[in-house]
Amino acid sequence: MSLYQATASAPVNIACIKYWGKRDTKLILPTNSSLSVTLDQDHLRSTTTSRADPSFSEDKLWLNGKLDEIKPGGRLWTCISEMKRMRKEVEDQKPNEPKLSAMHVHICSHNNFPTAAGLASSASGFAALVSSLAALYKLPASPSTLSLIARQGSGSACRSLFGGFVAWEMGSSPDGSDSLAVEVAPRDHWPEIHALICVVSDDKKGTSSTSGMQRTVETSALLQHRIKHVVPERMRAISAAIKEKNFDAFARITMQDSNQFHAVALDTDPPIFYMNDVSRAIIALVTEYNRVSVEAGGKLKAAYTYDAGPNAVIYTPQENVKEIVDMVVKYFPQAQPFKDPFGLFKGAGVQGGVVEGFNTAVAKQFEVGAVKTLIHTRVGDGPRVLGEEEALLGANGLPKTVA
Amino acid sequence: MSLYQATASAPVNIACIKYWGKRDTKLILPTNSSLSVTLDQDHLRSTTTSRADPSFSEDKLWLNGKLDEIKPGGRLWTCISEMKRMRKEVEDQKPNEPKLSAMHVHICSHNNFPTAAGLASSASGFAALVSSLAALYKLPASPSTLSLIARQGSGSACRSLFGGFVAWEMGSSPDGSDSLAVEVAPRDHWPEIHALICVVSDDKKGTSSTSGMQRTVETSALLQHRIKHVVPERMRAISAAIKEKNFDAFARITMQDSNQFHAVALDTDPPIFYMNDVSRAIIALVTEYNRVSVEAGGKLKAAYTYDAGPNAVIYTPQENVKEIVDMVVKYFPQAQPFKDPFGLFKGAGVQGGVVEGFNTAVAKQFEVGAVKTLIHTRVGDGPRVLGEEEALLGANGLPKTVA
Repeated sequence: MSLYQATASAPVNIACIKYWGKRDTKLILPTNSSLSVTLDQDHLRSTTTSRADPSFSEDKLWLNGKLDEIKPGGRLWTCISEMKRMRKEVEDQKPNEPKLSAMHVHICSHNNFPTAAGLASSASGFAALVSSLAALYKLPASPSTLSLIARQGSGSACRSLFGGFVAWEMGSSPDGSDSLAVEVAPRDHWPEIHALICVVSDDKKGTSSTSGMQRTVETSALLQHRIKHVVPERMRAISAAIKEKNFDAFARITMQDSNQFHAVALDTDPPIFYMNDVSRAIIALVTEYNRVSVEAGGKLKAAYTYDAGPNAVIYTPQENVKEIVDMVVKYFPQAQPFKDPFGLFKGAGVQGGVVEGFNTAVAKQFEVGAVKTLIHTRVGDGPRVLGEEEALLGANGLPKTVA
Repeated sequence: MSLYQATASAPVNIACIKYWGKRDTKLILPTNSSLSVTLDQDHLRSTTTSRADPSFSEDKLWLNGKLDEIKPGGRLWTCISEMKRMRKEVEDQKPNEPKLSAMHVHICSHNNFPTAAGLASSASGFAALVSSLAALYKLPASPSTLSLIARQGSGSACRSLFGGFVAWEMGSSPDGSDSLAVEVAPRDHWPEIHALICVVSDDKKGTSSTSGMQRTVETSALLQHRIKHVVPERMRAISAAIKEKNFDAFARITMQDSNQFHAVALDTDPPIFYMNDVSRAIIALVTEYNRVSVEAGGKLKAAYTYDAGPNAVIYTPQENVKEIVDMVVKYFPQAQPFKDPFGLFKGAGVQGGVVEGFNTAVAKQFEVGAVKTLIHTRVGDGPRVLGEEEALLGANGLPKTVA
């Protein structure tokens, strides 16, 4: 008797052109296209094992060791149903294939980063779910086709189906069939792009992005202008910057679009704030760091971007990461030593400091803990199908470890 | 021998529809119309004495006891020159009038609120300067005509030439002759409008509004949309709300426009932030306070607004001020007792507390000093010409007291 099981991992992505607003909330069709960088799964990933078995009595899903509910009509249910539908098409074409689409599935998913880190796990999570089911079902589907399904789980999940630099084309069809992810450039095109994630402490529960973005659609007078007149041009310009490996243009557009996303959130009634005083201070540091470079005749060296929370992600060419870690640690003393996955500090620890000519008065020094931790990673590849030894389900079809 | 001297006071104004952006930086012509509430001079005012004397060897101006420079071509110089020009017209028509326009002036100005309070003093200051010179020169000029001159000192100063509710019509003439203040409604039309100013501690030096607004004009993709498509309709709607004494509409537009001003500041490259975590917390409190009222079938009871700094001004009908002071003091404990100019607490001191049904989790309690002080005032009248006993210049033509 065969074991029908597959395991896949999928990466986190962080947008440079932000997704904010749905034109169809059920199908998750956005009001504008967006573009992201896929981060390296060696550091941040969701892993999912899916198994189909005739003995299973219902579809079940465990997330980080905890049984999750699969509500009929809900997002998890929609993704699983869509994958079964595609499997059924394969079975209809190849009558010798086992009838997996008629079996219930057990799905076990795990994120290797804590929820408390404040990193959205829904993107990598739904991408890993779809990827593991695609492997289980041996679907001949392209990443773009799978992205159509991941999108219905969580909009930005569609972008985690590719590595490198990824656009989510908003499309125009009412059925969503052209609202999908495409590769702008693979990781190997520009592997020097690194990312430093500053995990910021927050004592305020933020507005969920799902409810927040719809309030913006309903009440912001500025959002429509952004959608119609700003984003299309930025999508063209940043795609060109990526193709030309023009970090200066990439950085400028990335920072402008982060700020504009938070501007339309603020233009919402009542207003939505995701950045706090720590986020503002990190913006001031990156702005000053870039000013020093530009005034010396150079280019922008770093780009901040903020999603629906106070955490900063700083994109920079690898050569600048050490300077940036030193700068951030000077203003935000760390309780724990910097985990140095690329060996920048050769085990010597971070001293903290700024580049010559830097105006240190642009921010005050914060208390230990204001930035809880720093994660150094880089642009990464797309979903990976993993071997049996990585499976999260045991022989009995239940999660191997209970959290 | 006659003494040619006059003293006037002028009020502070706080905008509901914000001025942000100039189309002509020399003449100070704005990119959009704006609208403000004039605050009561009994609480906050600038007072200015102007004297013309043939013995004076140059124009001199003391601000808060300190001699200020009158740079040729600068803003002070422009206002004084324009007033002399208008005086000259009077003299040309009435040859018996003394030739004050040919004499130098001594001007002494004082604000009754500390600069450290973070309240813009340029609006009341230039309005008092222009008003005292108009009284000295016995000009037959209307407040709107004087507002043309005050505007060239500091844009928002033009709105301090009237009491009550005041519009600054942007105008269209390149020479600025139609960019002036007009009365929307006098103070007596709606005297119940009170204001609570929350003076917020800030450890960050903000971007000056003069340089900040031009950076927004140059770099914000959203500002043009605001100027062309949002502000004109809001000016119409809030003027109607004032005329109808419709506080619900007044409050909604005021809060939306404050947020949109800060949104376009954030959409600037590099971004400009004026609000901090304390400002955000006050927004959360007012939003929750209004929610409780609206969910009980009532209307909005308070409106926050923020200028180019972290201070909140909360507009509310008089009947709600006590509840709002209680709410703010609960979250922002005060080092000094609340100065209670309207006797709301009958000398008993503020207990601090929230209305029934208020979700206290919308903000955390801050340390003493996060809100440094609370100033309770209300809508007020326009500039006042004061008696000789209020003069700031002594018989010798020098300031009476040295700061």
